Amino acid sequence: MYKLIDGKGIASQIKEEIRNDVSLIRQSGARAPRLAAILVGSDGASETYVAHKVKACSEVGIESTLLRFPDTIGEERLLAEIGRLNIDKDVDGFIVQLPLPPHISEDAVVSAVSPDKDVDGFHPENVGRMVLGMPSFISATPFGILELLKRYDISVSGKRCVVIGRSNIVGRPLSILLSKKGVDATVTLLHSRSDNLKGIASEADILIAAIGSPSFVTSDMVKEGAVVIDVGTTRVKSDTTKSGWRLAGDVDFESVAPLCSYITPVPGGVGPMTIVSLLMNTVEAARRLTGQIAGSSV
Amino acid sequence: MYKLIDGKGIASQIKEEIRNDVSLIRQSGARAPRLAAILVGSDGASETYVAHKVKACSEVGIESTLLRFPDTIGEERLLAEIGRLNIDKDVDGFIVQLPLPPHISEDAVVSAVSPDKDVDGFHPENVGRMVLGMPSFISATPFGILELLKRYDISVSGKRCVVIGRSNIVGRPLSILLSKKGVDATVTLLHSRSDNLKGIASEADILIAAIGSPSFVTSDMVKEGAVVIDVGTTRVKSDTTKSGWRLAGDVDFESVAPLCSYITPVPGGVGPMTIVSLLMNTVEAARRLTGQIAGSSV
Repeated sequence: MYKLIDGKGIASQIKEEIRNDVSLIRQSGARAPRLAAILVGSDGASETYVAHKVKACSEVGIESTLLRFPDTIGEERLLAEIGRLNIDKDVDGFIVQLPLPPHISEDAVVSAVSPDKDVDGFHPENVGRMVLGMPSFISATPFGILELLKRYDISVSGKRCVVIGRSNIVGRPLSILLSKKGVDATVTLLHSRSDNLKGIASEADILIAAIGSPSFVTSDMVKEGAVVIDVGTTRVKSDTTKSGWRLAGDVDFESVAPLCSYITPVPGGVGPMTIVSLLMNTVEAARRLTGQIAGSSV
Repeated sequence: MYKLIDGKGIASQIKEEIRNDVSLIRQSGARAPRLAAILVGSDGASETYVAHKVKACSEVGIESTLLRFPDTIGEERLLAEIGRLNIDKDVDGFIVQLPLPPHISEDAVVSAVSPDKDVDGFHPENVGRMVLGMPSFISATPFGILELLKRYDISVSGKRCVVIGRSNIVGRPLSILLSKKGVDATVTLLHSRSDNLKGIASEADILIAAIGSPSFVTSDMVKEGAVVIDVGTTRVKSDTTKSGWRLAGDVDFESVAPLCSYITPVPGGVGPMTIVSLLMNTVEAARRLTGQIAGSSV
């Protein structure tokens, strides 16, 4: 019988830990950590994500500022706002919610954020520092997945991990982190051009699906006893929810779960961990800015 | 019957191309590209590597400056020298030959080099830019290996590549480059902690050994028809050479070669490509600095 990985429960537990960390920071006489979020336009999913982040901050005592701009904002103006946040001593870390309108270069925006305040871990310097094993901010989803594995005592050392999907914010960094020294998994990165994708996936001890394609992973791709981590969160139409949509994972849960030792559900698996990772990075940024000793960040 | 990948021959051909590029730059009225190299101490292997680099520069018309310091130099002083090179308009790119004496932090040194002049591609920002698919300097050995595969028309798209060794300067960046969009290999990264290393290696269509352990790859680890790239260059004692040593690869050539479709020899395989990659990066740095259109660099 498979065990469900309760990301929501673990996330609540970690939020409690962060709340304590923030209390300790306040008791030391420092101000509360502060996160700023830039939201351009009014994309539905982006609105929801940012609202969740702001809410999570308030739950743990992190202060937050939401800066909203219309989707007609020019790139230059947006970069100027980023420049202001880079030097604002009252802001420990900030994020720019992606995607951005097509007339704004995401590369330019991501590179404009000071690496010291880049709590999303998207800046090339943070990505490079992660690759080289230097201290860095790790982007939220990979960080959250590693934390889930750790809290469930699932060892990956020496084992075969197969990551499906090579996105810059999930698959790629995750494949790097899983194979670094001290984590020590043997990682294979699969993608849309891979030959024999199903065969290779079925060799995995730990299979991680991060492609954004509902029910892509079927039972013929999963080895008996595997750990399956589902990163997919695609919005699909639904007649049974008030909102008219529901979140669909990359794994066909019904058929795959019976084969697994552990599996994450969608929703309630990886998703909730993403936000607590951002909170952890923000507390870490605050610690660094106030010169306190580095905490739990990788 | 296997085909030998003639790195030495390809490197000569590329040097000829670079010589032409440099001529064109000079004809446009610009000064010759210039590389500076910092050498600390007098380690035998480092001396040889730097001498080869300086000689290769002169062969293609790139000017070079060798800056030597005793191994007693302090970190602060070395960082100051790097700072000077960063702003020297007559230097397009520079390298600090590694390893450094133990009292100097290699991380600090590598991070001090301006990413725009970092023709070794070791700076975290260049590493991150490579991961994210942005323009960057790619470190010499991975760049050289990709170039060899390209010039021999060996397609890796969709195929299984297995890289043995996760060093920051070879295995890790190579695994990233091989799986990026447009190259599209399915890459598995093996290392000292991997279970079933031999079994996984023997699944490879393209097997790349970068561990620095002579004759580590034996015939039982290689699939019939595989392409084998040997990055090893370990100095071992030898009675038959004037110097008293010879270069040993990571592959047991005698037993492995008969199984291969293609294989690189040691010496004369990957080694010569490393230096031309540095030359290519230097010309690219010169083009960028003088505002010319970007050339062949990735």
